Amino acid sequence: MNFNYFMPTRIIAGENCIENNSEVISKMGKKAIIVTGKTSAKINGSLADVEKVLKNNKQEYVIFDKVMSNPTIDCVYEGAALSKESNADFVIAIGGGSPMDSAKAIALLSSQDISREKLFSGEYESKILPMVFIPTTAGTGSEVTQYSVLTNDAAQTKTAIASPLIFPNIAFLDSKYMKSLNKTTTINTAIDALSHLIEGYLSVKANGISNALALEGIEIISSLFDNLKKFNLSDKDRSKLLYASTLGGIVIAQTGTTAVHSMGYSLTYFKNIDHGRANGLLMGEFLKFVEKEKTELINTMISKMKMNSLDEFENTLCDLLGEKEKVTNEEIEKYASIAIKSKNITNSIVIPEQNNLIEIYCKAFEV
Amino acid sequence: MNFNYFMPTRIIAGENCIENNSEVISKMGKKAIIVTGKTSAKINGSLADVEKVLKNNKQEYVIFDKVMSNPTIDCVYEGAALSKESNADFVIAIGGGSPMDSAKAIALLSSQDISREKLFSGEYESKILPMVFIPTTAGTGSEVTQYSVLTNDAAQTKTAIASPLIFPNIAFLDSKYMKSLNKTTTINTAIDALSHLIEGYLSVKANGISNALALEGIEIISSLFDNLKKFNLSDKDRSKLLYASTLGGIVIAQTGTTAVHSMGYSLTYFKNIDHGRANGLLMGEFLKFVEKEKTELINTMISKMKMNSLDEFENTLCDLLGEKEKVTNEEIEKYASIAIKSKNITNSIVIPEQNNLIEIYCKAFEV
Repeated sequence: MNFNYFMPTRIIAGENCIENNSEVISKMGKKAIIVTGKTSAKINGSLADVEKVLKNNKQEYVIFDKVMSNPTIDCVYEGAALSKESNADFVIAIGGGSPMDSAKAIALLSSQDISREKLFSGEYESKILPMVFIPTTAGTGSEVTQYSVLTNDAAQTKTAIASPLIFPNIAFLDSKYMKSLNKTTTINTAIDALSHLIEGYLSVKANGISNALALEGIEIISSLFDNLKKFNLSDKDRSKLLYASTLGGIVIAQTGTTAVHSMGYSLTYFKNIDHGRANGLLMGEFLKFVEKEKTELINTMISKMKMNSLDEFENTLCDLLGEKEKVTNEEIEKYASIAIKSKNITNSIVIPEQNNLIEIYCKAFEV
Repeated sequence: MNFNYFMPTRIIAGENCIENNSEVISKMGKKAIIVTGKTSAKINGSLADVEKVLKNNKQEYVIFDKVMSNPTIDCVYEGAALSKESNADFVIAIGGGSPMDSAKAIALLSSQDISREKLFSGEYESKILPMVFIPTTAGTGSEVTQYSVLTNDAAQTKTAIASPLIFPNIAFLDSKYMKSLNKTTTINTAIDALSHLIEGYLSVKANGISNALALEGIEIISSLFDNLKKFNLSDKDRSKLLYASTLGGIVIAQTGTTAVHSMGYSLTYFKNIDHGRANGLLMGEFLKFVEKEKTELINTMISKMKMNSLDEFENTLCDLLGEKEKVTNEEIEKYASIAIKSKNITNSIVIPEQNNLIEIYCKAFEV
């Protein structure tokens, strides 16, 4: 039994958990930089909750709300500049994967000088600002991972900073901030979470702990497929989705993601297809590729979903995702040539070759 | 979904994991204090492996091998004195629960002055020596918990230091050190692990993560009941036991233990009954007490064990534990009056009153 396990983030979950645990935030530092996107944290109430706690705690703060979807390297250097300039001594991330992943890079770049060339090198000093993370989608699971995925124009894809240094210290999970999410975002982020759980389960680095949590999360999300389709989600459903998404984060913190993420990144980079949706579009065909060699694993997963076959699952994904984008043969050739270079590929329990990737893209987009 | 989760220890598991990860130890400090018992670490090869790595790494060390079973408060102050005197800057614990729990207290007492009166107060400064833990029984799970259970003569029971500060930094899991364990120790420690898993599952603080891991661990240990009974354990069985025992630790790090541990402590303190055995002797009757109100929980657990009833499980425990010790009515009255004061009691999903404790003791010992 060879395995490693590490996930040092403290999770505090429940309604009003930020307000109810204000003393946890008070211990983090004197001045926060709040890293968030342009609008959602203002709409869903999370920013106001955080500001209230900081004011009550007499902690200063500055807000960096310029994080866009699929954040760029420029963006995190800009955030780090503000952080240093304003002498922030801890970071609060509020939002989906983009603000959270940016916040990790900002926490790192605030504490040490790292050139753009070295940003993804993993060669860092052991210094970083402490981090409090508040996910407002369910989601990326970034609140419990050591990954910061940024748009890497040099490599024409997304690339991850991966370092145990960038695990957040605290993750507050309050699903009330998700009530205002629209149907598309809710479905895409749920599929992203599902994708982490499934890819983690089908990773060469999977172990007993990650598998127990992955199957738990897969069971939860698949029990909500019908409600997701109807977009009829109760508060309890929202909190289950958030919990499952955090499970997905804990899982990929151990296993990494696999070929689905590698392939999905091109769809996001070149076609601007949302990250979760990109994974969902590819998932069914990738699982069929894995099923040929690892039938039992797929069967265990399908039975956790209370489904009868992979086809049934693929049909459900199609229903959730609606009409597919058009992708050409030339595009697929290009995407496969980029994806095959990604390290995540070799994380898959069945490692695809470039022609397998082409076949998966083709079948997924009916090309 | 209100819950907290925290378990920051990095787990590195596998055969020869210490040797294969010597660079992890090299980063811990310049001089180690190795905390262990008198003999077992010498017999099972773990001490020699650690010494070899330290020598190769050119790290100094001093050995404190005076930890007895059910370690006393005197013992940990003595270890801390040696640690300070020899300027150790990190702690390596090797052994079962006694050395591991002592090592946590020694790491704490080496970094700050805490009076005996304040030892269990939880009021500590945020300073402690870094810790590497090597369990050689499976077991206590102490390698992944924030508890240090010591014999507390003032309270005539065992009392726990409980603080997130005392989570070990690294846990190395190598079941080869367990090959030399005799049948009694193997069974008693396995039942201790099972007890953590079951009590965690039946704790008011149980959450989705702890339950998924608890059920995984319960399934593993119960699959080994027959081999335990015959004392016919393969290397793989040993590694499964160790893994399940670590799962038990992760679980109780979230949930704490419950009434079984509270009641068991008196059996250990006054009758010198081994800790795991004490829990095992009480477990069946405690579960019957819980079953009256929480039938479904017990059924889920029993089905994970691939058993048909609680009686079947209780019979298995009896087989494993052999002839029971004699306990008198007067002793039971006294033990119940001590156990009812323990905080663990209120952790139970069905909270027993003093007369329930008496009844459980009486039935367990057929008094």
